Amino acid sequence: MAEGSDDIQALIALMARLPGLGPRSARRIVLSLIRKRGGQMHQLARLLDSVATGSRECLVCGNITDRDECAICTDPARANGEICVVEDVADLWALERGHAFRGRYHVLGGTLSALDEIGPDDLGIPALIDRIRREGVTEAILALNATVDGQTTAHYIADALADSGVTVTGLAQGVPIGGELDYLDDGTITAALRARRRL
Amino acid sequence: MAEGSDDIQALIALMARLPGLGPRSARRIVLSLIRKRGGQMHQLARLLDSVATGSRECLVCGNITDRDECAICTDPARANGEICVVEDVADLWALERGHAFRGRYHVLGGTLSALDEIGPDDLGIPALIDRIRREGVTEAILALNATVDGQTTAHYIADALADSGVTVTGLAQGVPIGGELDYLDDGTITAALRARRRL
Repeated sequence: MAEGSDDIQALIALMARLPGLGPRSARRIVLSLIRKRGGQMHQLARLLDSVATGSRECLVCGNITDRDECAICTDPARANGEICVVEDVADLWALERGHAFRGRYHVLGGTLSALDEIGPDDLGIPALIDRIRREGVTEAILALNATVDGQTTAHYIADALADSGVTVTGLAQGVPIGGELDYLDDGTITAALRARRRL
Repeated sequence: MAEGSDDIQALIALMARLPGLGPRSARRIVLSLIRKRGGQMHQLARLLDSVATGSRECLVCGNITDRDECAICTDPARANGEICVVEDVADLWALERGHAFRGRYHVLGGTLSALDEIGPDDLGIPALIDRIRREGVTEAILALNATVDGQTTAHYIADALADSGVTVTGLAQGVPIGGELDYLDDGTITAALRARRRL
């Protein structure tokens, strides 16, 4: 038993299964925690317990929250008629960090996929259409990933909203801020050229 | 508050301070833990608490253990007269994974460093010399890192053991297994050439 004790080995094995980590980085993290003599480890354990017990999905939008409805869904200032549809909670967090969107969200939890047999009902798309009609939404921004599955899903939702009077938009495609043309793929350059704008 | 709740934000901030992680990877890990619905998070919390409470340094060698003396120091089969001196517990674990060394260890916990004002007493080198004489050690393998500080420390220990009758050795330097000459630094190639051996 090289790594100290059974518990240390179990902790390293569990950490090594987290996304982005492996046995080497897990060992490094566990050793650094042990060196810091308890305090940080107990704090980490307390927060993990608390988050595991307290976290659930917002009943309205699917964001992760510690209440029935998340802080965005209960903020009256954010009922501005705009709803932003995202694939995943991580995408919602990324948009919130940008501070550019002041409306509400809807998390699909995935994309349509014939291969994985994920249909509109699995993603709650009928419920989303209901929600959009019920809340008097004026613009639905489909902020789905620029992948084949993401764009298929966006087209499906846009079609379902075609006769609802709601403006359906998608994120602009083009050169990322700070991007160098030489390092961009051909598809992005072509899309940026087609969508060129007057300066 | 983008990231769900205060606890989730605190958990991400704490995770982001672990070695090798940053805000992005910490968010990814926390989201994946939340998605797995509690089980794994409670298990991780329990192990962190248990390791934080139970881990301490072996009184003899400095390895991390859950008892007063580690499994290696209490195993009579490993009292073979060889002692391997390493800088850090991580180095001890790395050597144990190799299964090549069957003696005992001594963890210095660092290297001599004039810049950081770390002297022989800070590393317990007098105690190490005592231990080597007391335990009837025949060979001391100084498995210190091939850095300036590591090699300075090795020379200091070798000098201190010069009149003890103990054989003092160091790890061989050369081309690593699977290494390609074209990618090696000049120092390693020179060392490997100087230490060339008959085939």
